[in-house]
Amino acid sequence: MSTPASLATTPAPPYYAVIFTSKRTSEDRGYEEMARRMAELGSRCEGFLGLESARGADGLGITVSYWRDEGAIAAWKRDEEHQKAQQAGRSTWYAEYHVRVAKVERAYGKQEK
Amino acid sequence: MSTPASLATTPAPPYYAVIFTSKRTSEDRGYEEMARRMAELGSRCEGFLGLESARGADGLGITVSYWRDEGAIAAWKRDEEHQKAQQAGRSTWYAEYHVRVAKVERAYGKQEK
Repeated sequence: MSTPASLATTPAPPYYAVIFTSKRTSEDRGYEEMARRMAELGSRCEGFLGLESARGADGLGITVSYWRDEGAIAAWKRDEEHQKAQQAGRSTWYAEYHVRVAKVERAYGKQEK
Repeated sequence: MSTPASLATTPAPPYYAVIFTSKRTSEDRGYEEMARRMAELGSRCEGFLGLESARGADGLGITVSYWRDEGAIAAWKRDEEHQKAQQAGRSTWYAEYHVRVAKVERAYGKQEK
């Protein structure tokens, strides 16, 4: 979806990740605007923790959003404007996609200095 | 890391996801070759289920690998050649990265026809 220029800063686990992977169709019709809008709306939801997104030159895209709990994920999935975007995604923008809901159990890494 | 042109086909949950998100340095020195090699080696490991990877034009990269269980993840992390790549990643290739280990609890999507 949208592409923030930085990695997400999340609290200590446990929390939830929604891993959305997709291949686009060649159909554009407002895709970028929708993606920006959904990133903006989603990030305002109660329980939203962060978002990371990338789409490679081959058209494969990965967006991972982080959430406090399953309830926060369910509330965002039910959002009316998001529901319309999900419908358009299925019918128009995505040739294929997978949504995987996962509980983050541990995390580590290297922070930029 | 490497960029397969297709989405991963994974079995029914539960299984594990390792979400690796990164920002590259400007240092190239064999990065692409290492990434290809690690994708190849990792995919031969016992318990490997699939890999999805994308890096956007802004340099933010996401690689998600899927595994049968925590034991399979631990064995791949200990692989000697992978250990050297991890060390070079920390010292040279990545300005910043996060590794999140998560248990996939449910999944759904749309398959390409």
